[in-house]
Amino acid sequence: DVYFWEAKGQNPLFPRIFGHEAGGIVESVGEGVTDLKAGDHVLPVFTGECKDCAQCKSEESNMCELLRINTDRGVMLSDGKSRFSIKGKPIYHFVGTSTFSEYTVVHVGCLAKINPSAPLDKVCLLSCGISTGLGATLNVAKPKKGSTVAVFGLGAVGLAAAEGARLSGASRIIGVDLHSGRFEEAKKFGVTEFVNPREHKKPVQEVIAELTNGGVDRSIECTGSVEFMISAFECVHDGWGVAVLVGVPPKDAVFKTHPVNFLNERTLKGTFFGNYKTRTDIPSVVEKYMNKELELEKFITHEVPFSEINKAFEYMLKGEGLRCIIHMEE
Amino acid sequence: DVYFWEAKGQNPLFPRIFGHEAGGIVESVGEGVTDLKAGDHVLPVFTGECKDCAQCKSEESNMCELLRINTDRGVMLSDGKSRFSIKGKPIYHFVGTSTFSEYTVVHVGCLAKINPSAPLDKVCLLSCGISTGLGATLNVAKPKKGSTVAVFGLGAVGLAAAEGARLSGASRIIGVDLHSGRFEEAKKFGVTEFVNPREHKKPVQEVIAELTNGGVDRSIECTGSVEFMISAFECVHDGWGVAVLVGVPPKDAVFKTHPVNFLNERTLKGTFFGNYKTRTDIPSVVEKYMNKELELEKFITHEVPFSEINKAFEYMLKGEGLRCIIHMEE
Repeated sequence: DVYFWEAKGQNPLFPRIFGHEAGGIVESVGEGVTDLKAGDHVLPVFTGECKDCAQCKSEESNMCELLRINTDRGVMLSDGKSRFSIKGKPIYHFVGTSTFSEYTVVHVGCLAKINPSAPLDKVCLLSCGISTGLGATLNVAKPKKGSTVAVFGLGAVGLAAAEGARLSGASRIIGVDLHSGRFEEAKKFGVTEFVNPREHKKPVQEVIAELTNGGVDRSIECTGSVEFMISAFECVHDGWGVAVLVGVPPKDAVFKTHPVNFLNERTLKGTFFGNYKTRTDIPSVVEKYMNKELELEKFITHEVPFSEINKAFEYMLKGEGLRCIIHMEE
Repeated sequence: DVYFWEAKGQNPLFPRIFGHEAGGIVESVGEGVTDLKAGDHVLPVFTGECKDCAQCKSEESNMCELLRINTDRGVMLSDGKSRFSIKGKPIYHFVGTSTFSEYTVVHVGCLAKINPSAPLDKVCLLSCGISTGLGATLNVAKPKKGSTVAVFGLGAVGLAAAEGARLSGASRIIGVDLHSGRFEEAKKFGVTEFVNPREHKKPVQEVIAELTNGGVDRSIECTGSVEFMISAFECVHDGWGVAVLVGVPPKDAVFKTHPVNFLNERTLKGTFFGNYKTRTDIPSVVEKYMNKELELEKFITHEVPFSEINKAFEYMLKGEGLRCIIHMEE
């Protein structure tokens, strides 16, 4: 949200209602909507699932051709118009969600219908970053029980990736971060060892290879730093290692490696929203929380009422805590 | 063989008996060898399977820690000595096979015991390049029935990759090569379309994306050219595309791409000997030929007696034909 609010190097689209990680209850549905009805509990997601395109029909993909994230579109798809206005002038939508608002209008394909007994002020976390990290591990890296996993970046997404490794029964989870202060917190998410690249003269991929007899079984990169991407790839074991890229890089980033690193039977994959399909898969992630398999409370470090939303931004910009829940009720 | 015979930039290890793509019959076995006996039909392979190391125990890998290809070792593993000599001086082994010889000595872990009714002068092809290309498709790229596959490089390995795509029921197989003359031959291996990058102004990945509504489902790079590797990766469809690297690059090659190509859910993998385990898997590839599923005859363009081995090298160096069988009998 902050990135698009700052709008550096972007086509500015203002006024606009931001917000994309949320939970809510359907107030009413538009004409022709049959999959949802008033009263349903839903998670709005920045990327949707039309269920009709080649991407939606592919078992592997979640990159819907119709409803894939579009940060430049500030209107509804059906008529190209906004549903918000102020003094007769349109206020634009943001990634189809615009959840910093008591009411919003969302395409049915961008709403996951979830278990109505799930607490919205917890499972709202599953509509973006936590699912992204969790799915990167569970759906893409797929570590086997007992395997070793490295997670690059111990912010909320990386910790969710670690949580996925913990759920998979990984025997060792190596956290990599430039801030050693993050290790203590990371232990709650299953991280067993910590490597700060700044504390080593050798490249971090070599440090990890030495720690793990040749490399980890799986690695997940959650920072978007291209140096970390290269390290995350080169630190997996030859023969079977799989590295997964999650973090979004700068526009001019270049991933570089010697091709022999691939030929020695390493795999590099990328993922978007943890490969979860919004409507098909997200309800089952909510169930993982309801079954007490997945722990969400530990991601919530702050809570504020909507009137104090700027405090939430301050926490984030200062790197304080992981997630701040904003309650619409005072 | 020629590369190591020229020994440019290598530690020269001479005199040496070359040869690594062959079939034979066990003449006798050494002490402690229980898996093979005199009379067994075998394919000697340049990379082995000890069945005991972490790589051999991994379902995915075939990169045996003990018997992985070693081009610098000219002796037997057990005692560090050669089994060949001339006038009392040792002649060195080559990649554990040294098959340009009527008799050779091979580690039991580098021998695939095959169906004795399989014709050795056909299935010998399965001990190197053909299995490499075939396995890259069948074991690593794994195209689904009806999918689109691009093969970069239409030499024997690339045509074997195409043969794998044909066996998998690919609906379109796009051959990419700098020599348009190769297309006619390639049709026999299932190639349905041909792209010569020299005949296009756009990068070949764009040409392929336009031909296939956004990219192929699978691609296999069989030349070792780093430009082709990048094209092979970037020409696969987002959401589900998988590219597989087979060709061995120059030492100083650098694979480069924008990381977003990964984040859009593309996968890049490399393979070595088509991910086949020498002892466990190669016998079943021979069976594919025996079942008339896999066609090998079309790879054989020349045959010479051993006394004319230099003719075989000439064919290869001129790029004439695909494989020349060298018969030990005159």
